[in-house]
Amino acid sequence: MSTLYEQLAEAIETRIRAGLLLPGERLPSVRQACHNVQVSPATVFQAYYLLESRGLIEARPRSGYYVRKPVRKGQVQVQTAPVSATTTEVAISELVFEVLGTTRDTDVVPLGSAFPSPALFPLDRLARCGALAMRHLAPQAMTAELTIGNTRLRDALRARYSRHGIAVNADDPIITNGAMEALNLCLQAVTQPGDVVAVESPTFYAALQALERLHLRAVEVPTDPDLGVDPDGLAAVLRSHRVAACWLMPSFQNPLGALMPTARRQAIVRLLARSGVPLIEDDVYGELYHGATRPLPLKAFDQDGLVLHCSSFSKCLAPGYRVGWAAAGRYAPVVQRLKMMSSLATAVPSQLALAEFLEQGGLERHLRQLRMALASNLGRVRNQVLKYFPAGTRVSQPQGGYFLWLQLPDHVDTLALHRQALDQGISTAPGVLFSADRRFRHALRLNAGHPDDARVVNAIRTLGELCGRGP
Amino acid sequence: MSTLYEQLAEAIETRIRAGLLLPGERLPSVRQACHNVQVSPATVFQAYYLLESRGLIEARPRSGYYVRKPVRKGQVQVQTAPVSATTTEVAISELVFEVLGTTRDTDVVPLGSAFPSPALFPLDRLARCGALAMRHLAPQAMTAELTIGNTRLRDALRARYSRHGIAVNADDPIITNGAMEALNLCLQAVTQPGDVVAVESPTFYAALQALERLHLRAVEVPTDPDLGVDPDGLAAVLRSHRVAACWLMPSFQNPLGALMPTARRQAIVRLLARSGVPLIEDDVYGELYHGATRPLPLKAFDQDGLVLHCSSFSKCLAPGYRVGWAAAGRYAPVVQRLKMMSSLATAVPSQLALAEFLEQGGLERHLRQLRMALASNLGRVRNQVLKYFPAGTRVSQPQGGYFLWLQLPDHVDTLALHRQALDQGISTAPGVLFSADRRFRHALRLNAGHPDDARVVNAIRTLGELCGRGP
Repeated sequence: MSTLYEQLAEAIETRIRAGLLLPGERLPSVRQACHNVQVSPATVFQAYYLLESRGLIEARPRSGYYVRKPVRKGQVQVQTAPVSATTTEVAISELVFEVLGTTRDTDVVPLGSAFPSPALFPLDRLARCGALAMRHLAPQAMTAELTIGNTRLRDALRARYSRHGIAVNADDPIITNGAMEALNLCLQAVTQPGDVVAVESPTFYAALQALERLHLRAVEVPTDPDLGVDPDGLAAVLRSHRVAACWLMPSFQNPLGALMPTARRQAIVRLLARSGVPLIEDDVYGELYHGATRPLPLKAFDQDGLVLHCSSFSKCLAPGYRVGWAAAGRYAPVVQRLKMMSSLATAVPSQLALAEFLEQGGLERHLRQLRMALASNLGRVRNQVLKYFPAGTRVSQPQGGYFLWLQLPDHVDTLALHRQALDQGISTAPGVLFSADRRFRHALRLNAGHPDDARVVNAIRTLGELCGRGP
Repeated sequence: MSTLYEQLAEAIETRIRAGLLLPGERLPSVRQACHNVQVSPATVFQAYYLLESRGLIEARPRSGYYVRKPVRKGQVQVQTAPVSATTTEVAISELVFEVLGTTRDTDVVPLGSAFPSPALFPLDRLARCGALAMRHLAPQAMTAELTIGNTRLRDALRARYSRHGIAVNADDPIITNGAMEALNLCLQAVTQPGDVVAVESPTFYAALQALERLHLRAVEVPTDPDLGVDPDGLAAVLRSHRVAACWLMPSFQNPLGALMPTARRQAIVRLLARSGVPLIEDDVYGELYHGATRPLPLKAFDQDGLVLHCSSFSKCLAPGYRVGWAAAGRYAPVVQRLKMMSSLATAVPSQLALAEFLEQGGLERHLRQLRMALASNLGRVRNQVLKYFPAGTRVSQPQGGYFLWLQLPDHVDTLALHRQALDQGISTAPGVLFSADRRFRHALRLNAGHPDDARVVNAIRTLGELCGRGP
């Protein structure tokens, strides 16, 4: 008995083979197909995916799925990846969802995960801080500080901004349900449906998902694997498009690991000031530098309140607590209203646990240990990649965070690799996740934030072997 | 030195008095004005509000602000409130934000608050449950159950649905950051920008805000103060408009307190099944019945997966924990994706505290005590209203929850009353908050969920006196 999506795929395949759907003909959009055959988007997506894997249809940038021209067996399909001159309607979320779904299985080696090993965090101490802060709390405290967030926590964050010489508004920061909510609220605060947003290329898939959810269009800006977005490239995009906002991750960019140098940061902030375009700065990895000092956020150079700085504790201290924040500059009142409208407030127990932890001290010591552990893991996994992956593989050398970006030989389709690896209990994050128009088919993000146990080493070796098999 | 909004109001007033802006002429929208004069939406709104209070401009349904025709002094402006035949673009959030902002001050008597007294909840026991559940937790638990939520909590909720004879999908419920997020995600799951959504009239302002945030349009359905939405009225709306979704609160509706009878519930679910229109059911007050049994949610009658049932623990057990959920029926996969895209996951400490509490037992005993306390408070406050408010005041007699809905004599503008009361340290929720086109200018929602201390009694007496002053 075949599943619903297999049935749908078979019905479409029959029509293609019968010549009812011709090469080059566009298939219905996922939305249309859902409506036509009364199935869920996931089902349509899986059916299209199956047909794509059989070589019957192909996804085209900015456009949808098309019936493929027949290809002679053995012929290599090379993906061209010029930088997009036009904006792209975003529809990446189904694929992200499918790939991320696999990382939840604890039997799977989580090389595709976005989180470092939870064993790296002081979870017991956080739990004790939470218990202490919640004991005999005045009942009014549970509803008194809706929306903007707990005063103790906000004061601690303001003090940290201040230590980096960053002055934040009285309205900032706004505490959110993780950085993800902060980023989404900030994006909504500065855009309207249909607007164009400049993003890195490759970019963090959550940025693409946020654009998709808010009916925005992406323009991808070339991004150097080491230095991040080039200010001249961004300036060219701002000249050629009516860009409503930028969304950048200057420090240990996900997935590249790029670290933007100070001069580029200053140039970009100057560019924003001239153009009046707001910038959403995703700084969740900023504390995870492996070098001597924390890279200053773009926010530190911003005199105009145009930078909406977003971060969280999820990657550096308290995964699962879902505490993030936005320092939204001149947009803070709008972000605060959007927070009220979309989720009202952030969980008080989580906020208080973090406030207590920060007040007790010891964050810096934890961060030092975490940075050392991540730097050591990253170096080790990188060496394993160099050892086990085929010739022609290029691998990033990030100065912070815990991601490696691999560019594999052209014969390796990392989406196919992802599926093969999953069959062997290994998750990966294929390159197509990181672009609105499905570039980076030969690239792969690997999570090197997990301890160097035999399982991880074996997984890297297996991946390398899968890549080495040739076309 | 006048504030920014006073300066803006003065500039506009000067133009009106000079005849540069004529009676009937439309003022720039808040958005346009922000852009024109480079100030925040809040500033524009406050300026417009000031001009409205001076009688110089008026808000017109579905349209914006207009310069008023001069009115002879002493003439009473009677607000006509026909049921809207057309849909309304929603722009209520600035006003809601302004009014809600006042309820945060603990020196203010919170008759305008949406929360009952936090002293009514077992916060100490919840804190102990949280401490217990977090102690020695496996680190993986912090990131293993992203998005859909903690299994223990989901199982406990599924068991509660089952006790009411409600079968939920394997994908349901999805744990959210309070009911507010659940409602927002469900609304987004079933609409596209520009769609029309049927809401009650009056309706909970958060519904109007959610519509505003998602660029949707409202069509208000007449709602009986005792029986809720009339199925025939809803059927008429579905015939005359292309409605993408309904958003209803059948049990102890906010602000009316209406309790929809079973026959109406069944008729509405049948109507949805015929029309294929999804319904978002806001059931946050369902557990707060003062009678013998819990009203069955519309979800209980739904055979087609069209009801997206949303609720939370915020009003019945755990304010501030921000744990809600959606049982979204056929839309569950879409809601889950939207949750992932907008806030990724719900705080684990909050989820575990509630899971532990529910597993330990004692929820029913707490709810019995809570219902008794709320019923008693409501009756007492109602008697005080009858005693202190002027003749001609009508007051609801809800069978659950903790809100009273007052319809005051025509000379009482409750938005003006709200401001006068606030000067005396009393917050209220004026009727205009509960309609997209600013109806219910003579109505008021009072929170009767606070203990009967002298402060509350005095506040009710003061309100009654303010109303009694006459036009």
